[in-house]
Order: sequence, then C-alpha cells, then structure tokens
Amino acid sequence: MPSDFKKAAILGTGLIGASIGLALKQRKLAEQVIGLARRETTLQTAVKIGAIDSGVTRLKEAIRGADLVIFAAPIQASIELIKQTGKLAGSLGEKPLLTDACSTKVAIVKAAEEFLPKELDFIPGHPMAGAETAGPQYARGDLFEGATWVITPTQASSPEALDRAEGLIRALGANSLCLSPESHDRMAAAVSHMPHLLSVALIEQAAEVARRQPEVWQVAASGFRDMTRLASGNAEVWRDICLTNSQRIADAIANYRHGLENIEKLLREQKGPDLQQLLSDAQQLRKKLKD
Amino acid sequence: MPSDFKKAAILGTGLIGASIGLALKQRKLAEQVIGLARRETTLQTAVKIGAIDSGVTRLKEAIRGADLVIFAAPIQASIELIKQTGKLAGSLGEKPLLTDACSTKVAIVKAAEEFLPKELDFIPGHPMAGAETAGPQYARGDLFEGATWVITPTQASSPEALDRAEGLIRALGANSLCLSPESHDRMAAAVSHMPHLLSVALIEQAAEVARRQPEVWQVAASGFRDMTRLASGNAEVWRDICLTNSQRIADAIANYRHGLENIEKLLREQKGPDLQQLLSDAQQLRKKLKD
Repeated sequence: MPSDFKKAAILGTGLIGASIGLALKQRKLAEQVIGLARRETTLQTAVKIGAIDSGVTRLKEAIRGADLVIFAAPIQASIELIKQTGKLAGSLGEKPLLTDACSTKVAIVKAAEEFLPKELDFIPGHPMAGAETAGPQYARGDLFEGATWVITPTQASSPEALDRAEGLIRALGANSLCLSPESHDRMAAAVSHMPHLLSVALIEQAAEVARRQPEVWQVAASGFRDMTRLASGNAEVWRDICLTNSQRIADAIANYRHGLENIEKLLREQKGPDLQQLLSDAQQLRKKLKD
Repeated sequence: MPSDFKKAAILGTGLIGASIGLALKQRKLAEQVIGLARRETTLQTAVKIGAIDSGVTRLKEAIRGADLVIFAAPIQASIELIKQTGKLAGSLGEKPLLTDACSTKVAIVKAAEEFLPKELDFIPGHPMAGAETAGPQYARGDLFEGATWVITPTQASSPEALDRAEGLIRALGANSLCLSPESHDRMAAAVSHMPHLLSVALIEQAAEVARRQPEVWQVAASGFRDMTRLASGNAEVWRDICLTNSQRIADAIANYRHGLENIEKLLREQKGPDLQQLLSDAQQLRKKLKD
C-alpha cells in the first residue's frame, strides 16, 4: 500500500508534533517525515526516537515539496510559521494539505485567512490529547488512539481537503469532530483552558499557605497532585492559549467563581442535605466519564 | 517477633479501614484483626481480600478485648462510634490504644474529649493517602507507604500513647507528622477539602455547558479527567468533611476566588508577561512535588 503522503513537514517537534511524527511513521502514512524546530537538540531527540527522518531549522527546507504540513508549535510561533509559509507557498509539493495542532482555533483561522493563499487547502485542527510533559522525548505514537481530534473547517475548505484531513485523523487512531472555531474555543475554555488556570491558582494558594506553614506540602496527597498536575505545563504554550482565547476563558472563570460562591454559601450555612446532593450529583456525572 | 497488638478492631472497613487492616496483617502487627461495618457484604469482601480475620456488625463484639481500636468510618459515624465506645470502655482489652483515620480533626478531638473516659489513650490521626474509589475491594496494603500520617495529640495524650501511635504509623510504612487539630484542619482545607470542591464545581460547570453543547464531553481530555477525578469520591464521606470543617473550607474558597479574580483580570487586560510569569511560577512550584 503506498503511503498517503510523500513528504510530511512537522513544524514544531514538541510533545504533540513528535507524537504525530511517530504515529505517521509507525503507521506508514508518509514516505518521509521532516521536522522543524528552533533548536538542534530538539531535532536530534526527535530523530533518535523515530518521530522524524530528519530535522531542519529553516522553514523553507522543511516545507519544500511537502504535501502534508502540520503546524504544531506554540500558537504565536505557529501563526508566524503560517505567515512565512504563505510567502513560500510556491515551494510546497503537489496538492498539499495543511493543518495544525494548536489549542485555540479562532486565532489560527484568522491567521490562515490573512496569510495563506486562498487556493491552499488548510483544515484547522486540535487533537484533544496531550500531557503536562513537554518535548519530543515524551512523544508516544499512540497518543491520539481513541482521542477526539477537533477540526474547524471554514467555508473556504474544499470537501476534498476535509475528506483527506478526516482520513488522516482516522489513520492516526483518533475520532474527528467538526466544530466552528468559536464553539471549539468556548468548549476548550470550559474543559481545558480554565482547568489549567484553576490548577495554577490552586498551587499558588498552597504556596501562600506554605509561607506560614511549610508542613502543608507534607499534608498534600494524591488528590492535590491530581488537581495541580496541569500547572506543570509549559508556560509559553499556555500564555499563548490564554492570550488567544482570553475573553472566553475569563467568562468561564467568572461563571466558575459564581459556582464557588454558591458552594461557599452552603458551607457557611451548614446546609448538609444540599451539600450531599451537590456532591452526589458530581459523583454521578464524573462516573460517566471514562478514565 | 511477637505482634505489637493482640486484637485490632477496625471500625469501618471501607477503603481506608480495609487498607489499614491489610497492612496490619501483611506486616504481622496484630495477632487478630476484627472489622466492624454496617453491611455484611462489606465485611465479607474485607475478609475475602485478607484485610480482616473476621467481621461483626455489633460494636461490642468488635472492641471486646481489643488493645488497638481504629475509628475509620465517615466522620459522623465515627463520632457516634466514639460515643458508644466510651460507654463500652470496660470491655476493651489491656492498655488499649485508640486512634482514628478521619479527615477532619477538631470535631474528632471534641468528640473524644466529650465521650471517652479520660484514662483511655486516644491519639487522633489522619493518613494523607486515599483514592476516589470507595469500599474494601480497592484496599491496598501499601497505601500508606511513604505517605504522611498526621497525628494531633492533645495535652491529655500520654507520652507513651504517642510513642505507640508513632511506632504503629512507622510500622505501616508512613511518616508521622504532629500538628494541632486546628492546623491540620486549616491545611487539609487548603490542599484536600477545597480541591475536592473545586473538582465538584468544575464538573458541574461542564455539565451546564453540555446542556447546550453535548460535544463538550468529547472535547474533555486527560487534563479534565485529572481535575475532576476527586469529584467521584463518596458523597457521604465528603458531606461530613464539609460539615465538620465548613468555616475553614469556606475561607479557603473565598481566598481562592480572589486569586481567580486576579487571573481573570490579567486575561481581560491581555497581560501577556504577567500571565507568563504566573504560569511559569506555578510550573516551578509543581515540579517540586513528587508525582
């Protein structure tokens, strides 16, 4: 069976980019996989673990002749790469499919509309998988197995490009889900971006308690570690997410603060049955989620 | 080597009680381990997994001749058991050591002072280990390995009883940490009780989003599962925790809400460098915690 793509260019070989590379190579979906990164050491690691065949630090070399281009750097860097790719579009391969793996979609769609030639097939995407670890050394070829992979095609997206993108996602083991960029960003704010900031706020508050009572770190157990695991995510990646989805995340936080105010009221008024109802509803909701 | 205790009575054979039983038996710390539970099926499971030698549903039988008594039921039930044990103190074994595994300590200390004869050695305790799973079937003999086990001795506690309790905790693989009941409850509010309610509030908010956009559950990935895992904890256990530490948890939530307000402000004002600093501080703090 011939590979689906001749040359895949992965622009940004961090955890997500390298995992895509690994999955492409393990599943023989591309004849050649080239990675782009700012640092040579990142590329060396990506080659060593088998995520890419070779790595380059110049965009032009990465995308020359590529028929699959995946923007997988932090958002601001990806937007810059989209801009530069627009200028170098002539050097792409035949019928190239462009996509991305960025965590916010409105800003990416806007950049693609502004910087990419209309005739290029760009299907924005966001695999809902990841980890708080960063860097190609943590890449896993099965990272997307069973995961949801959101795509946010626009009216400019050709049906053929959409088919190809969905085929690629399926081949990587994931389930594609079509959403508008706005819907994606609103839902991601509620279940990914805000939770990250909740985690950040929690560890910051524990640090404040620790200034007076350092034993608090000994008292913190597995539940605290679960609740703060996200906070160890890469600061640059998350700054970009915050800045490109600020309004929706802020609205989600405002909502959440009101929810907390209600719980605080139940506590201060010692409303046992109401608290038990709330706890029991949450317990039932959580049990429906697969772990 | 003779066992440290002749007969251990574990009052409440849920996850924690059964794990203590399993650890006692695996480490040969008691000649006989008796469990008390409300339901026969719970006791049968506890016997089957080897957490207890036999089980009873009547307190008097459980504590008769016991020289180690561990209150490990939900808090209100434990308080009731402390009260009844006070009345039956005469049937305890020789030089009995009494302790508990409840998640709040002020209420337990108060109950012990009110209901237990002064001459009985009661050392309140709280192993900082657990899981969102409930029931003896999830018990693990190594649950306390390396964990912090808080004890909150009072002025009434004899040095000898304190020694015995610390020896027991060490023998179970944990590290004892002496705190005042108030300090324990304040710190537990910050790193255990409040996080549980943050988790509850988060899944409730996602459920609200899902009413309009059911795809949100597909968009939710591993980070969301981490942040809501606590919410699947037992509602009765957590209601009791909320009610016996309500003021301190409410204060911690109020503090946390202010922290969130600041983050919301940074988002609305698009303060990139401030956000990055916050994210990067949190990242450093979290990296210091062992996972």
